[in-house]
Amino acid sequence: MHADLVAIVGADHVEADVTLEDASGLRGRAGALVAPADAREVAAVVAWCYDRDVPMIPVGGRSGYSGGIVPRSDDAGAVAIALHRLDAIRSFDPLLWRMHAEAGVTTATVARRARENGLLFPPDPGAAEQSQLGGNLATNAGGPHAFKYGVTGRWVTGVEAVLAPGEVVSFGGPVRKDVAGLDLRSLLIGSEGTLGIVTAAWLRLVPAPGEAFPVAAAFGSVREGCAAIDAVLGSGVVPAAVEYLDGRCLTAAPPPFLDADAALLVVCEAESAHDRDELLEALGSGAVSPPAAEVWRWREGVSIAVRAARGEKLSEDIAVPVERLADAIEGTIAIGERHGLEGCSWGHAGDGNLHSSFLLDPGDDEMRTRANAAAHDLFDLARELGGTASGEHGIGLLKAGQLSRQWSPAAVDAARAVKRALDPKGLFNPGKKEP
Amino acid sequence: MHADLVAIVGADHVEADVTLEDASGLRGRAGALVAPADAREVAAVVAWCYDRDVPMIPVGGRSGYSGGIVPRSDDAGAVAIALHRLDAIRSFDPLLWRMHAEAGVTTATVARRARENGLLFPPDPGAAEQSQLGGNLATNAGGPHAFKYGVTGRWVTGVEAVLAPGEVVSFGGPVRKDVAGLDLRSLLIGSEGTLGIVTAAWLRLVPAPGEAFPVAAAFGSVREGCAAIDAVLGSGVVPAAVEYLDGRCLTAAPPPFLDADAALLVVCEAESAHDRDELLEALGSGAVSPPAAEVWRWREGVSIAVRAARGEKLSEDIAVPVERLADAIEGTIAIGERHGLEGCSWGHAGDGNLHSSFLLDPGDDEMRTRANAAAHDLFDLARELGGTASGEHGIGLLKAGQLSRQWSPAAVDAARAVKRALDPKGLFNPGKKEP
Repeated sequence: MHADLVAIVGADHVEADVTLEDASGLRGRAGALVAPADAREVAAVVAWCYDRDVPMIPVGGRSGYSGGIVPRSDDAGAVAIALHRLDAIRSFDPLLWRMHAEAGVTTATVARRARENGLLFPPDPGAAEQSQLGGNLATNAGGPHAFKYGVTGRWVTGVEAVLAPGEVVSFGGPVRKDVAGLDLRSLLIGSEGTLGIVTAAWLRLVPAPGEAFPVAAAFGSVREGCAAIDAVLGSGVVPAAVEYLDGRCLTAAPPPFLDADAALLVVCEAESAHDRDELLEALGSGAVSPPAAEVWRWREGVSIAVRAARGEKLSEDIAVPVERLADAIEGTIAIGERHGLEGCSWGHAGDGNLHSSFLLDPGDDEMRTRANAAAHDLFDLARELGGTASGEHGIGLLKAGQLSRQWSPAAVDAARAVKRALDPKGLFNPGKKEP
Repeated sequence: MHADLVAIVGADHVEADVTLEDASGLRGRAGALVAPADAREVAAVVAWCYDRDVPMIPVGGRSGYSGGIVPRSDDAGAVAIALHRLDAIRSFDPLLWRMHAEAGVTTATVARRARENGLLFPPDPGAAEQSQLGGNLATNAGGPHAFKYGVTGRWVTGVEAVLAPGEVVSFGGPVRKDVAGLDLRSLLIGSEGTLGIVTAAWLRLVPAPGEAFPVAAAFGSVREGCAAIDAVLGSGVVPAAVEYLDGRCLTAAPPPFLDADAALLVVCEAESAHDRDELLEALGSGAVSPPAAEVWRWREGVSIAVRAARGEKLSEDIAVPVERLADAIEGTIAIGERHGLEGCSWGHAGDGNLHSSFLLDPGDDEMRTRANAAAHDLFDLARELGGTASGEHGIGLLKAGQLSRQWSPAAVDAARAVKRALDPKGLFNPGKKEP
């Protein structure tokens, strides 16, 4: 194996017997980690693996939360394919609002290049300095500004990918509208590397909005805060983001711009002074309008601060219809209590997307087991509320089997049929996104 | 056949031996036309057909331009399934920006209900009073405002569909973010009824923007006009629409707000007075700012006026990267000349999407034959310019075979594999969207 892979990517770019781990804390061993230089080398590695029935695991910035890059114990012979050397921006046409970037380019690099040219690449998942475009596409990543701007796939007009048994293909390109073929571009996006390996993408950009005007207000109860979110949606304004934090998260990550002693904090962002005033009115008399830089610097630290509250946490990413948000926020706390855990949540209120979490003592395996059981209850809750087990992170290894509880058998059969059609040997990221 | 279908949908809703025709002028015969009352009846009809190897053709508002509802001569025994009785708006929550509508609801009904509640359903294909939501999803329909707002699929969070061999399934729902399964919702959208039959959709809406501020300018040459479009894209404004008409179209459909004697007319729409002023500056000294109602009333009549210029026309919908727009506009005229036809175009400049047309004498079959040859050259041109044979209308019957000229063999194989996976007997709208 080693010699063949070295022949494809060079000795400096093959490592034998590696352990892979992402931000979920899950880890697993693969037979080799290779780092191809370009799409052609990715295709050669895939062809080699497909011919020999060797499982493949695409690896990006390792910042995922679902174990999407973590080999199962069955896959210790797998070849992990790291995309970080595919880091070219193949073309960038600021005046045409367009960038063609390879899968290994970091999210932050795309955003920075856009911003330097007066443009916005809207997807803003956490860990932008670490995460790569390929991983963003694999999970169809979101973020706070997805409320107005949509998730990653909305900004992709074309993908280049390596499909079985080792072919480089393109679906779409720089054209902004194309209905000539089945939408295999969208099918690949969010497929978590289970249908093929994305090697590059054509991105749409948009002129950057001007000044941002965040607005925030604290509420004495979850229900009052969620009523304020309803008022925001009814205000006629389209906020760029509608975020929330519950009381426990506020204690862990007190905002610098407001008294943190509340059951729910709602943070919105307007893109004009007029809209800011409308949102201030919708949020009521206690609402404030802090500087955007201050709000987002604090907001980016929330996940780390919540983890630090006890040393460790288990965080999920359920999503529910927005009118069930209060039920999901209160349900998270109640589920924690049932399992003897402190539950809390924050997230993207406008999209009904919660980062429901349970605080843990580091290294306490028994507590971790209880948290896993609590997470299971959380997925049940999301489903009962008409929602989904994953709004952002994907299924990965962590949530394997959840889809079958959420979709009908016929719908699951359709997903399995499509997977088999594009990966008949089942070698692309096996066990991931498993219904 | 008749008796079995009557047993499913009732005698009043089965018609034997029908001719089907859409706006392309193509027509063909089907063995029966049934009009089920709901998704359950659609599933029963599909099950009956799938069991007996009978081809099925979903039929919406018959306003398509690619023969997507027209049976091939091979399919004279097919069952056409009309969706117009699935016309319920199952739920509408204006304060949650959300509607659940069945496939037979007209585009205009969705738009009107939204507008009456201060909301916008942005997709605005032509023939909104006639076209149905199911057809909009089948083609992933666009329109002028797709430049800012995107095409139909962007506004769909869930679909209900009948898949082989006759199962009602749902992918997504009212939740705004969901990455739990493969994105079969997006796969169905734009599939032209070749993978299954969409029976309902969950739609996202958005608060309606305030006043619209169109801006228009005429240019003495195609190149000057396209340079102005570049200036618009470079202005920092995000226009809601960026449209153009060439000189021949202007003669056929003179705008009421500007001298029509020009080689190219550019029409943009701003959503604020500030943006209007920026666009006026980008378009240069001759630019005007007519009332929105006047602009769009005129714009909606363009297609009919161009047809009326000679009595008949053949219109295509190629799309190219926006920097190749001038080449495509000039190329359309040159291709017409080569075939002894008057060529012209108008369309969605910002999306690089042209309605390239050839003017015809009604009933002149020889001229129609030349126009079909010219259309073939047009698809070649689009491909050479890095574009696509279809930006809006879909492949239908009319453009069968174009995808194989545009995609690589491996990419086409992937599309065929997905089709086979979901429709192993090949009974859903056979011959349509054929690569």
